[in-house]
Formats: sequence, structure tokens, C-alpha cells
Amino acid sequence: MARSEIDVVRALLADSPRSSDLAQRRERLDGFGTRYPVAADVEVVPVDAGGVAAEWTASPTADPSRIVLFLHGGGYVSGSIASHRHMVAEAGRAAGARTLALGYRLAPEHPFPAALDDALAGYRFLLDSGIGPGRIALSGESAGGGLALATAISLRDAGLPLPGCLWLTSPWVDLDMSGGSMDSKAAVDPLIHRDYLIELATAYRGGRNASAPLISPLHADLASLPPMLIQVGSAETLLDDALRLASRAASADLAVTLQVWPCMIHAWHLFYQQLAEGRQALASAGAFIRARTET
Amino acid sequence: MARSEIDVVRALLADSPRSSDLAQRRERLDGFGTRYPVAADVEVVPVDAGGVAAEWTASPTADPSRIVLFLHGGGYVSGSIASHRHMVAEAGRAAGARTLALGYRLAPEHPFPAALDDALAGYRFLLDSGIGPGRIALSGESAGGGLALATAISLRDAGLPLPGCLWLTSPWVDLDMSGGSMDSKAAVDPLIHRDYLIELATAYRGGRNASAPLISPLHADLASLPPMLIQVGSAETLLDDALRLASRAASADLAVTLQVWPCMIHAWHLFYQQLAEGRQALASAGAFIRARTET
Repeated sequence: MARSEIDVVRALLADSPRSSDLAQRRERLDGFGTRYPVAADVEVVPVDAGGVAAEWTASPTADPSRIVLFLHGGGYVSGSIASHRHMVAEAGRAAGARTLALGYRLAPEHPFPAALDDALAGYRFLLDSGIGPGRIALSGESAGGGLALATAISLRDAGLPLPGCLWLTSPWVDLDMSGGSMDSKAAVDPLIHRDYLIELATAYRGGRNASAPLISPLHADLASLPPMLIQVGSAETLLDDALRLASRAASADLAVTLQVWPCMIHAWHLFYQQLAEGRQALASAGAFIRARTET
Repeated sequence: MARSEIDVVRALLADSPRSSDLAQRRERLDGFGTRYPVAADVEVVPVDAGGVAAEWTASPTADPSRIVLFLHGGGYVSGSIASHRHMVAEAGRAAGARTLALGYRLAPEHPFPAALDDALAGYRFLLDSGIGPGRIALSGESAGGGLALATAISLRDAGLPLPGCLWLTSPWVDLDMSGGSMDSKAAVDPLIHRDYLIELATAYRGGRNASAPLISPLHADLASLPPMLIQVGSAETLLDDALRLASRAASADLAVTLQVWPCMIHAWHLFYQQLAEGRQALASAGAFIRARTET
């Protein structure tokens, strides 16, 4: 029987196990950016976004006034513009938008709130550039998903104009790892386990309480946040982060769309070039973003 | 300040309070079918669906091979083909499908499993008519949503071919009323409260255990069920039924899409003619059904 596409991805991950060395860990994740090319028609332009290293991408049909502001994954300690460039570029194509990917500062060198400060600076840079807030999809994957949510909360609390929508893939929003799927999905998740997350959380929070709302935005007041698309795989220890976030957001009267993708693994969008569900998830996110960044 | 559309609907409901008399209660719900006309281009044809009173509707562009099988709401004791005809017809238009609405038997005259038996008979009628199971969207609202889910579980357990997808609006899947929103949303829900649900559940279960999986399908094994769209309003005591169902289905590796509609009330689709969110929810459900009834 032919292997399924997700099994091919699983084999690829098994062939390249995560190192315990921080530098090697960062190199490994950046390696995805080397493995997967960016489509030839995508324009890639580095930019200083209010003091934060950043990068524009645009496909030929992108509406220049619509922006996917993207915060990469990597547990707050790894990941970069380079690791996610191929995927972010395609997300932009799907959304008919330019993308601005942020190279926010990483822990342990730069613990909380450095990443949050950089995300806020990147958002303000867009506003200062004349982009309408309602034309921005504030987005992130994994730790970047939690960071995107914390950014939206900070914007609300600061009285700044909110983005048109949030797009969160496999978001990590509970740095206490209290979700039931942390154990129930451990055997099927090839990437994310409690011990690893404890290490990451310790590096990121820098002695602060893991339950603080801007560190674990699952516990934050979510009132008045914009419409939110949450995409998660069912083969993730972080499944319950997504489910509980959807519940919390629903109880706060937000417009929530939750998509659970059977048997998909953490951050499966990254593998879209060899995974139909990755392309489908990007297409679905793109449609969501187009519909909610019209004004 | 102009009233919002949902406030107009709320005023309409307040002007027509639910009776404690069963016959008057049924008349009231059927009155929605009188209040809201069916579009002039919709063909409406009564049919005997395997012994169950039923009705086809079709808009001019409906694909005759694609079917929305619809189970109305009304707490298992009220509601009918007539009460939901206008909404079902438009759901079919949105889905590009014919609809088959079932007039399943009601409690207390016909307690469980009469409604379930009728739903299964209606589904078998479609298969016997040559409809491909993958072209059927098994659908329901409120009690009908729970019934649709119980029907899918029964089909799976009987080894019958499963429908292409499930579409559940404001589903009632926990006849123990153990969700937190039963209390937290009681003040904002104009229709559904614990005492009323206890009365309905007592009539429907006819002495059986409320936690039985086919009576409260929240507690059932959901493995291998088809893709599921759950739509719920945030101003519903049944919000947690939808959220917990999404979580249970996700944990069982199903394809789940949950949409939470801010400030919408129970079964708001019924008011689509005067409520933009009703039309939007039908459009979204139609797109979901089209994409998942292709084979």
C-alpha cells in the first residue's frame, strides 16, 4: 500500500530529529526554508519594521493594501523569517495579500516581553505605513499563534485599532501545559511533548508566572477581539490548546471558526508542498482572511 | 439609534411567548412557517419516505443527486416540516441540493427511539432511491441536530454507508444539561432554559437514561463519523453543547468545523429573511455541504 502524504512527512521528521543544542535546533528549523523553495513569482523584500527585522512577500496578484502579519513558530526559542518563508508566501497568495513576516527576538537571549514588544512594533509599523487596521490579518503558528493572540490583547488594552481578524495555526496558548491532549495525543504527535514545552516555557517566561495572561493568553480576557480562525491537527498534543481557546473565545462572544484537521500534525502547513491538507488549510485560511479584511 | 436585526427578532419572540400547552406550543412553532414564505421558485413536493411523512424542496439550480436531509428542531415534542420549510428550502439553495425534510414522530406520544427510527428510515429511503451516501448532508437543528448525530452513529454501528457530512445548528446533544453555558448564558438566551429542557428530555427519553449515547450523543463514541459543521450562537444556553461536541469529535480524529456566531440566538437561521447573520450562516453551511458532497 502506498504511504500517505502525512506519513511521508512523519518519516522526514523522524530522519531529522530535534537536537538538544539550541544552535542546532535553530538550524534544523531554518532548514525547512532551504528544503522548500519559494515560488518563483513571489517578490521577497527585507524591511526594517519599526526596529524589527522583517520581510515583505507578495505574489503578483496580491492586493497591496491587505496584509498578513505573520509570527512564526519555534517555541519562542527558534524559527525565523527563513524557516517559514515558503509557507508565509503561499498564505499571502491564498489571502490575496502581501505578507509581513517578523523576525521577532527569541528566548532565552530575549525572554518575555521582547517578542511581544517586537510584534507590537511590527503592527504599529503597518499602521504608520498607512495600512488600515481592518486590512490586517494578525497571524501566527504555534508559539507565534500565542504571540499573535497576546499581541491582539495588548492592542486592545492599549486602545489601539484592532486588526480585521486573527489566524492562528496550532496555537500554543497555555504555557502550563494543562490540556488533556498533552498526554492523550503524546503517542501520535511526532514533534511536541511536555518536557520540550517545559523547557521552552521556562526560557520564554524568564521567571514570570506561566499563567500570566500575556504569556498564556488562554487565561486572558478575550472580550472584543476580532474574528478568529483557529486551525489545529487532531494528532497534536496542543489540540486542547486550540479547543479551549475556541471555547473561551466563544464564551466571550467572539466570532470563532475552529477547524480540526484529522490526523494532521503540529504546524502541518509548513509541509504544504507535499501535503494536500497543507494546501487546503492555506486555501481555507486565505478565504477566511479575504472575507474579514474587506474594510 | 436603530435597533439591530437580532433585537427585532428578540422582540418578535417576546411578543409570542411559548405556551405550556403542548398543542399551542406546536402551533406557535408552526407559525414561523406561516410567517415566513417559501421563495416562489422553490418546488415543494410531499413524499412518503419509507413510511415517514416527508417533503422534497428544490430550487431551480439544485443538483438532484445532492440531498440535504433535514431534521427540524422543537425539542423532540414540537416542530414540523411546516415550521422549518422556508429555512430548509434556502439551505438547499445555498447547498445547490434538493432537501428532504422529515416529519419524524414526536414525544411525548412517541418517545425515543421513534424519532431515531424515522430518521434512519428517511436515510434508507434516500439510499433506496439511488442517492449516493456521499451526496447526502445529514442535518438538523437543536433537538434535530442531536437526532442527526444519533442517526449517524446508528448508521455507523449498523454498518450502513455514511453520509458525506453532518451539518448541525445549535445542536442539543446533552440531555443532562450539564454544560456551563446552561447557567452562564441563561440571561441572554431568549428561548432555551434548563426547566424547559428538563421537560423536553423527560418526554423524549420515556424513562430511559438521559446519558444513553443515542439520547445524548455527546457521550457516544464518535469515531469514524463524517466531516461535521457545527454552527452555534454565543447567546445560547446550548453553546457548551456545541463546544463540547466539537472537542469530543476532535479528540476522535474527526474533521470538525465549529463556527461560533457572536450574539446570535438559538436556531437563528430560522429568521434568515430578516437577519443577515442567518443568511450568512446558511451560505456558509451551503459552501461546506457543496465541498463535502462531491462524491
